[in-house]
Amino acid sequence: MFSVPDTMKTIPNALYQSLAEELRGAISDGRLPAGSRLPSVRETSRSRGLSINTVLAAYRQLEARGQVEARPQSGYFVRSRLPSPPPSLQSQAPAQAKPVDTAVLDRIAAVLAAQSNPNTIDLSLACPKSSDFYPSKALSRLVVDHARRKPELLTDYSLPPGPLLLRREICRHAHDLGMTLDPENIILTNGCMEALQLALRGVTQPGDTIAIESPTYFNLISLADHLGLRTIEVPTHPDQGMSLDVLELLLSENRVQAIVTMPSVHNPLGTNMPVVAKQRLAMFAQTYRVPVIEDALYAELQYATPLQPTVKSFDMDGWVIICTSYTKVLAPGFRVGWMEAGRFQRRIATLKFSASLAQPAFLGEVLGCYLESGGYAQHLRRLRRVYASQVDRLRGLIDGAFPAGTRATEPTGGFLVWVELPEGCDANQLCDDALERGITITPGSLFSPSGRHGRHIRLSGCHHFSDRYIHALLTLGELAQGQIIAGES
Amino acid sequence: MFSVPDTMKTIPNALYQSLAEELRGAISDGRLPAGSRLPSVRETSRSRGLSINTVLAAYRQLEARGQVEARPQSGYFVRSRLPSPPPSLQSQAPAQAKPVDTAVLDRIAAVLAAQSNPNTIDLSLACPKSSDFYPSKALSRLVVDHARRKPELLTDYSLPPGPLLLRREICRHAHDLGMTLDPENIILTNGCMEALQLALRGVTQPGDTIAIESPTYFNLISLADHLGLRTIEVPTHPDQGMSLDVLELLLSENRVQAIVTMPSVHNPLGTNMPVVAKQRLAMFAQTYRVPVIEDALYAELQYATPLQPTVKSFDMDGWVIICTSYTKVLAPGFRVGWMEAGRFQRRIATLKFSASLAQPAFLGEVLGCYLESGGYAQHLRRLRRVYASQVDRLRGLIDGAFPAGTRATEPTGGFLVWVELPEGCDANQLCDDALERGITITPGSLFSPSGRHGRHIRLSGCHHFSDRYIHALLTLGELAQGQIIAGES
Repeated sequence: MFSVPDTMKTIPNALYQSLAEELRGAISDGRLPAGSRLPSVRETSRSRGLSINTVLAAYRQLEARGQVEARPQSGYFVRSRLPSPPPSLQSQAPAQAKPVDTAVLDRIAAVLAAQSNPNTIDLSLACPKSSDFYPSKALSRLVVDHARRKPELLTDYSLPPGPLLLRREICRHAHDLGMTLDPENIILTNGCMEALQLALRGVTQPGDTIAIESPTYFNLISLADHLGLRTIEVPTHPDQGMSLDVLELLLSENRVQAIVTMPSVHNPLGTNMPVVAKQRLAMFAQTYRVPVIEDALYAELQYATPLQPTVKSFDMDGWVIICTSYTKVLAPGFRVGWMEAGRFQRRIATLKFSASLAQPAFLGEVLGCYLESGGYAQHLRRLRRVYASQVDRLRGLIDGAFPAGTRATEPTGGFLVWVELPEGCDANQLCDDALERGITITPGSLFSPSGRHGRHIRLSGCHHFSDRYIHALLTLGELAQGQIIAGES
Repeated sequence: MFSVPDTMKTIPNALYQSLAEELRGAISDGRLPAGSRLPSVRETSRSRGLSINTVLAAYRQLEARGQVEARPQSGYFVRSRLPSPPPSLQSQAPAQAKPVDTAVLDRIAAVLAAQSNPNTIDLSLACPKSSDFYPSKALSRLVVDHARRKPELLTDYSLPPGPLLLRREICRHAHDLGMTLDPENIILTNGCMEALQLALRGVTQPGDTIAIESPTYFNLISLADHLGLRTIEVPTHPDQGMSLDVLELLLSENRVQAIVTMPSVHNPLGTNMPVVAKQRLAMFAQTYRVPVIEDALYAELQYATPLQPTVKSFDMDGWVIICTSYTKVLAPGFRVGWMEAGRFQRRIATLKFSASLAQPAFLGEVLGCYLESGGYAQHLRRLRRVYASQVDRLRGLIDGAFPAGTRATEPTGGFLVWVELPEGCDANQLCDDALERGITITPGSLFSPSGRHGRHIRLSGCHHFSDRYIHALLTLGELAQGQIIAGES
């Protein structure tokens, strides 16, 4: 962002060094916690009587050492010292295709039940419980306006394909993720979940085997189970995404009928598959003639712009089905999802019709109208900043509260952090103990049909960091610490 | 409605006879077309200078002869002279279980495509294209009010089970159909279609066989096909509903894993299964331990009140799954459906979660609020009257326009009429010829997975009877007449 000033060399060493040293002290003793913003360069320059260049040099030194990071249009932020999980995750070999462990399904049900209890302190739910994060007032104004000007939208039969305005806007914004789509091919769905359901039903038969990521979004596991599909878990690394080597082996042996992936802001990892890997995955789909179902639910929440493109962006032959929705980025209450199904378009449009006919046209029109306005770009910019800062702060809190040896992913977008507890910890037990104290977290075993990731938990950084939230995190850290002590004694 | 006045005997014969005669003349020469309302008793009394009792006696004579009918709080209406289809429908034997004929699926797609063409004259779509039939203004006011007072409903995550107000109101109104339900057990769905999808997925496995009515709602046929289910067609008569004798045979031979029925205001027949038969069907479900999926989409549109109860009303042991929505009765654009799944409740709630998570809470709250008001009862009363009168008028128009020998059902609710063309007619051909003239109708073969009912069509009486609509009906009649002439020559 900031180019190195030409005058850099002329800054007296002692001045910027001592400022950097002072800030490092404040970071290490917690006065400047992870996620907090440094005073702006201009402010510090003024308050310290230093030149802009001197302050900039100090900040850049901290940045070079990974202690702070510059964020576009926002300034410098303290980074957390939490290390990422190592490249080699707990279980690296692909799990064999098998039915879902019923204990996993039961645990999913227990966490969901706890989430709906209003007294629970929720570190689990992947959606804010406060409406501050989303533009409810702007949406409310549009709703009022539409209800008055077009009341017939409420009582006209909502039939496919749904509002053209919305489908056009979907395609316009899909450009930002590298996709060129035709409004004619956009199928509106009841959230991303229905898109995934239709995609899987469109390309598989009961008894088929699908390759899924490990860890993967837990409701995909239930869905596969309900559709009578077997799953093979492909190891998925925060920095690399789904292991393409493993995947290629499975494809070459003709062992999977479809691949499901979330390569842009993964749930639960919070990270991206590198763009070259996405390109390679798109090529696999074409070469092996196997559909790739790409879940892009959080893709627009990437912190860095321009956004990294989707796998669908590299789809030449219609083998990639993109599924997503506005639930995480704009309007959780609208349940407006969509998909573009490439070569499976016609079959899946027909499936949608017999699965649930159509979506409410009124909400679709309102959303289309919002997307057409400049408000969406502005909202996304703000939301990315907010979530980036919350995630940083969450990582800092984890760093402070959890036992030594805890690792956590460094998300590239969204609000989810995947935490690896040290040896001797049991995440399922931690989840149960937390539930007893009215705290929900999502244990890692939920993200694997065979119950892997027993030392991992997923935490949601999309909630206000109230005292209760922070206290709950401290409690979690103590419980984890207690497990280690109990194991050693 | 009107009790016979004690003074009946004292009315001079000549006076009421001559009035009746005159009215009969007006009916037979079309001055009083089928579906039209007679002037009120009071009006006629005043304009003719006759006593109330004399006019009443004349009207009651016409009623006794089936030429007019009294409707509660509305007056006397001219009935059409169209006969009902005979008890023995074209194909009385149950069709063997088999996969769906692809020609049927193709024809469904062609009709749907034509419906979305705005220039089409639509006698096919089972929903008004005008918003006059539904309370769009009242709903719009509620939408405005909710968007202002509770904007957070738009951006809060919509999670199951959805608004309690709506689920309570659903149960309150379910009483009118004889059902005692618990709001805790109401699963909100994306219209009735998703309810049917979930019900079938909840109680069957791919490869299973289900008993369906013949004729049945055509999208159920697509759904069964998409779920890999085989179907057995059970003959279904306008006056008797699904043949219970056939059904009992199938059950006793253990040949079906589920039964799907629409016993209250059937689509396409427009009629009810008798209450005793509903009771017997509920008993079958219990005795044979086979789930009955009851589609009650039009049940609240029964013309006569009190409404006949559903099969679910007689369900003792949780074998009946009721599926319905507010799409046909109140708010076609909301897509608010619901189901109560008896003993399959837990499994189906889980299926819903992985199928599409939840419904938009905002629309659910608005609808709950409307249902809570007295407006709903008032709207239903009005809608029943309007549809009863439209259906009568439609039957009258069919009577006038179609060849001799045409028969049509006499609906007990809703707005659909099932027409049987005379020998020598081909409904598929008629549909194709009509499409060429920009008219859509629904050919009978769509309502059977094996393409039965080749001499039937379904017409929708929920559209305004504009000149174009009436002209289209006349055109249809001419086309049918042309088929008979062509066949004879």
